[in-house]
Amino acid sequence: MSNPLQFAISHQDASSRARVGRVTTPHGVFDTPAFMPVGTQGTVKGLLPDRVRGTGSQIILGNTYHLLLRPGAEAVAKQGGLQKWTRWQGPMLTDSGGFQVFSLANINRIDEAGVRFRSHIDGREIMLTPEESIRVQNLLGADIIMAFDDCPPARTPKPRWEGPGVAKKGGAAPDDAKTAVPPAVTDEREYLRRVREANERTLRWLDRCVAAHGRKSEQSLFPICQGGTDMEMRQWCAQRLVQVDAPGYAIGGVAVGEGSAEIRKVVEFTAPLLPAHKPRYLMGVGYERDIVAAVRAGIDMFDCVLPSRNGRNAQVFTRQGPMKLRNAKFIDDPRPVDETCDCDCCAGGYSRAYLNHLFRANEMLGPILLSIHNIRHFQRLMLDIRAAIRDNAWPAFAARWPVAELVPA
Amino acid sequence: MSNPLQFAISHQDASSRARVGRVTTPHGVFDTPAFMPVGTQGTVKGLLPDRVRGTGSQIILGNTYHLLLRPGAEAVAKQGGLQKWTRWQGPMLTDSGGFQVFSLANINRIDEAGVRFRSHIDGREIMLTPEESIRVQNLLGADIIMAFDDCPPARTPKPRWEGPGVAKKGGAAPDDAKTAVPPAVTDEREYLRRVREANERTLRWLDRCVAAHGRKSEQSLFPICQGGTDMEMRQWCAQRLVQVDAPGYAIGGVAVGEGSAEIRKVVEFTAPLLPAHKPRYLMGVGYERDIVAAVRAGIDMFDCVLPSRNGRNAQVFTRQGPMKLRNAKFIDDPRPVDETCDCDCCAGGYSRAYLNHLFRANEMLGPILLSIHNIRHFQRLMLDIRAAIRDNAWPAFAARWPVAELVPA
Repeated sequence: MSNPLQFAISHQDASSRARVGRVTTPHGVFDTPAFMPVGTQGTVKGLLPDRVRGTGSQIILGNTYHLLLRPGAEAVAKQGGLQKWTRWQGPMLTDSGGFQVFSLANINRIDEAGVRFRSHIDGREIMLTPEESIRVQNLLGADIIMAFDDCPPARTPKPRWEGPGVAKKGGAAPDDAKTAVPPAVTDEREYLRRVREANERTLRWLDRCVAAHGRKSEQSLFPICQGGTDMEMRQWCAQRLVQVDAPGYAIGGVAVGEGSAEIRKVVEFTAPLLPAHKPRYLMGVGYERDIVAAVRAGIDMFDCVLPSRNGRNAQVFTRQGPMKLRNAKFIDDPRPVDETCDCDCCAGGYSRAYLNHLFRANEMLGPILLSIHNIRHFQRLMLDIRAAIRDNAWPAFAARWPVAELVPA
Repeated sequence: MSNPLQFAISHQDASSRARVGRVTTPHGVFDTPAFMPVGTQGTVKGLLPDRVRGTGSQIILGNTYHLLLRPGAEAVAKQGGLQKWTRWQGPMLTDSGGFQVFSLANINRIDEAGVRFRSHIDGREIMLTPEESIRVQNLLGADIIMAFDDCPPARTPKPRWEGPGVAKKGGAAPDDAKTAVPPAVTDEREYLRRVREANERTLRWLDRCVAAHGRKSEQSLFPICQGGTDMEMRQWCAQRLVQVDAPGYAIGGVAVGEGSAEIRKVVEFTAPLLPAHKPRYLMGVGYERDIVAAVRAGIDMFDCVLPSRNGRNAQVFTRQGPMKLRNAKFIDDPRPVDETCDCDCCAGGYSRAYLNHLFRANEMLGPILLSIHNIRHFQRLMLDIRAAIRDNAWPAFAARWPVAELVPA
């Protein structure tokens, strides 16, 4: 049985753990460090696959939780799997559904077997277990699938997110707009107990995921390292995960309420504990500087809803920082969103004035154009990051990306 | 001062008044008979201009009423005019705003000066006159602009529109979803009085439009023939209009409540009264068979919101007739919307099952894909109509387009 995932590292940064590589999957290749736009319900909202491809995206993420509820994994499998059904001609990754169950669903019971919850769509009761998550992901058929894990709550309450401006102050990347992460556990002792319990359960559930995985020759199963913000717990989890000879590893539980500095600390500690010759995936992160810091710690893959979700709310990313295009000051601004940008929106000549109008008039084209711009913004970040690694040119990179400037951890 | 519009007829049908031609404008050419998708608020909803172009559309329509209210004509002019602002690189036509004022706004007074109304957006009081409509259209800068006319109400109440199925029973093309046409005047005597009054006022207003038109070397002003469903009134109006040497002429007031048969009667009577060597535009029509009948009566241009608006509601057009893709029977239908279609949706391999999912999940991509398909459906109709005229091949056309089959008038 051949390995359905190959990872070739072509450049190793001189000044950090950053590396440039390429992942080959049954549905094609993607270059790393890679950014995956999120296609929650079988579509990156508002964008046809050719347009997503046009942003430079090579791999996209689908949400198992949403697809499981609607239209159901069997329905997708009947249409030939996620890629054929959605017409995305390239690699895909599905998450396990666990994170959304914890954040979106009405949970009735969590125990060793799994999680019993009610759908947020129709209230239907569903049981998600490691076996069921893998069965569903096998039916969806993505190239990379994720282990079903127990994600512990945060130690600090998640700051209320107030738009991209918050990023400057160090807020972590928020997850989906509809997501309400579980309440933080501020009591230190109780926090550590929950993290340990989640860690141990995550390991036991991983064994069950591996055993349940029925398409090993086509789909690569990534385990997820938990451990919250406790370094001992991170180490404990990572050491046990690497004993499973997985094709790649993820770091989970870091976009649930901590600031940029704390994300960075966890990632810089955890990434080196995961095998250097396999792709490392940091889940749900994030803002530009979070990504740059993580790349330098040795991370190869990212996903985040920020570019598309913020785009739908008229919030754009630029190299100088974010802007809110609904603002009245843009009403007659003839400039493109970002004069340095080559996306279909900026290079296409759409003005801030026109975009402001589209959002005021509630026209779909506003969210569409800004999703294109924002995703391209992140893909240009990744292109420049890869160039900086290849050319050992981080100072030039920093000059081009003031928004990604690293603050001391 | 050179004429900003040239119309060259290349083929004249042997069996009818239908003809194939090409209109040249300052922003490019379009082939006739032509179908114009509607871009109400500066965008064909959900579609970037390249995608609209990809459907085979060569000219699109913008709504003066909507743009006047938001962002305002001065704002559009400041950005270089409608085409530069929206990035539609091709011919455009704007209506006069009159029809929407009558149907959307809260009218305070209609008199010889014009119409005083309150915006449906913010209640602001606005006065629209022939001079103001032309001033606004001069600022917007479309290649073809329309005279501000007095559109009389219908003789018969407009049937409540119930989706594309109604077309089969002979309903006229409905206008915008938000449009409520003025109440019908069922009393014969009062109806004729209103039609005569509207006709006379339309003529007086036309003189004022012509006098106010400040960009005659760039924009072509089309008068509109009114007269309701009364042939004497139509004749009276047409005879006076043609004394104005306009670059083209429109037939208005025919999609306000009558059935297909009545539209056909009016069009077949009126079209030949308008100069044969100039483009004739039938406003707001319609379904496939209404278009085919009008083409055979000598009409060259059409506009209608049907393809885009129905597409947004999961209603698709096919050569065999309409379908509602939200219907449960499509949940696992792997076929494209129309197997004969070459649009980005059908040829792109999107299944009815996937489209059904997109609408159930309330994803923008559903309206986007079906707008593409439906507009392409109408453009393929126009392509086949032009081929039928060129090749004198109406029987072959009828075999390919059962949905457009003509019923005896």
